Amino acid sequence: MPNYKIIVQYDGTGFSGWQIQPGRTTVQGEISRALSVITAQRVRVTGSGRTDSGVHARGQVANFNVKSRIAPDSMKRALNALLPSTIRILECQGVPDSFNSRFHALEKTYIYTLFRSPVLSPFLGPFCLHFPYPLDLERMQRAADLIVGERDFSSFTTRSDKNNHVKKVLQIRVLPRGELLHIKVRGRGFLRYMVRTIVGTLLEVGEGKRSPEEMTGILEGKDRSLAGPTAPPQGLCLWEVLYPDPNAPIPEAVPEGGDDE
Amino acid sequence: MPNYKIIVQYDGTGFSGWQIQPGRTTVQGEISRALSVITAQRVRVTGSGRTDSGVHARGQVANFNVKSRIAPDSMKRALNALLPSTIRILECQGVPDSFNSRFHALEKTYIYTLFRSPVLSPFLGPFCLHFPYPLDLERMQRAADLIVGERDFSSFTTRSDKNNHVKKVLQIRVLPRGELLHIKVRGRGFLRYMVRTIVGTLLEVGEGKRSPEEMTGILEGKDRSLAGPTAPPQGLCLWEVLYPDPNAPIPEAVPEGGDDE
Repeated sequence: MPNYKIIVQYDGTGFSGWQIQPGRTTVQGEISRALSVITAQRVRVTGSGRTDSGVHARGQVANFNVKSRIAPDSMKRALNALLPSTIRILECQGVPDSFNSRFHALEKTYIYTLFRSPVLSPFLGPFCLHFPYPLDLERMQRAADLIVGERDFSSFTTRSDKNNHVKKVLQIRVLPRGELLHIKVRGRGFLRYMVRTIVGTLLEVGEGKRSPEEMTGILEGKDRSLAGPTAPPQGLCLWEVLYPDPNAPIPEAVPEGGDDE
Repeated sequence: MPNYKIIVQYDGTGFSGWQIQPGRTTVQGEISRALSVITAQRVRVTGSGRTDSGVHARGQVANFNVKSRIAPDSMKRALNALLPSTIRILECQGVPDSFNSRFHALEKTYIYTLFRSPVLSPFLGPFCLHFPYPLDLERMQRAADLIVGERDFSSFTTRSDKNNHVKKVLQIRVLPRGELLHIKVRGRGFLRYMVRTIVGTLLEVGEGKRSPEEMTGILEGKDRSLAGPTAPPQGLCLWEVLYPDPNAPIPEAVPEGGDDE
């Protein structure tokens, strides 16, 4: 069965997140529904990971197998014709049967955006957290650097049954851009709410409520109550998901894949 | 009675334009309603000009007189607290009684935005016209330059009872910016649909359906049927309205003020 890889962009405002749920409008649900119209089959769509309600994506990646053999460009056009305008398929390509967007994801980048001026732009409101308070960005970057590495992130996620909360964060950058502040987080994979809890905690550091050095203790304590609040979803955007070179042999499934934000 | 000048930003998507209308949600109506809550008076809000249903504003200017003496910064905060998040008051200042945002406007800038890539961004869809077709920008700029000047713009507006359709267009620039194309129009004042009809006509020139030189004949014909279609509203944004130096004496009302797009 042909396997298609798609790059998906969505304005998460009106969706109950990525994952299909009965009675809710979700991104995965909308794509599955469009595919069932195109192929007259029930199609299972695999995403690189779930995004929560209200979280956006500039470069979510998904894949699906269908019985019909449809040219990738026709598939893309048919999907875009059937999907709501708040979900767009940017790219569609045929990939080897074995490709799995969840298990083969090598690296993900999330960007969290704050709007720092006193009056929130009516255009950017749905895509950022309004945060018009003073922030010490240098302290935030110092705290961020202490989080980077392969660590147990139990303090930055909700309690779950998973016994492994070890994730590898590759880089966190605090990037002021005019009225905006971006917090860019690159990692091998993330636990649920992990990026948003990192952001909430960094904001407390930036406001002077915590010292950057507390980060080490928060991580070591492995207790969610030690970290700051979970920043609200509308500021978060799944920016990019990287995969191994398609010409290289596909590696074994990596445990970092398949987690969620 | 104190007179306040405000700079207003709005996402026009959900509004039936600027001008107050019974039974419709309009920007002027929302601001008037907020002012009536703040001042317990019926307050008349004067805008630099109307914007049509679905048109946005980055820098609309308005003014209003109220009996209560409220510090401009408190007025701004109160308005932003009461207005929907799609309308924001960026600035509020006390101005001389004689200031009138409609009649004293010296110059307005509108920007019309096209999205040129095949797949329309889900984030920018409400703020541009999707136009993924080839365009000859150099031809468009040549045609635009032929429109600039003080001219009778009857061919670029709907029939109206006004006997004067002479307006002064100061500059039109065709500005490619990555996937976007901005058409920036500066003028002393505009007739209804004038910017959008200029854009619709320039697009026909860009597509090769007309020659740039036809512009002169279209203007001279003074007939709406000679020009191209009116481009849709969501691509249009009232960018900026300029006034005389507040320290200079306020001039007599200029006839260019008070018209609409």
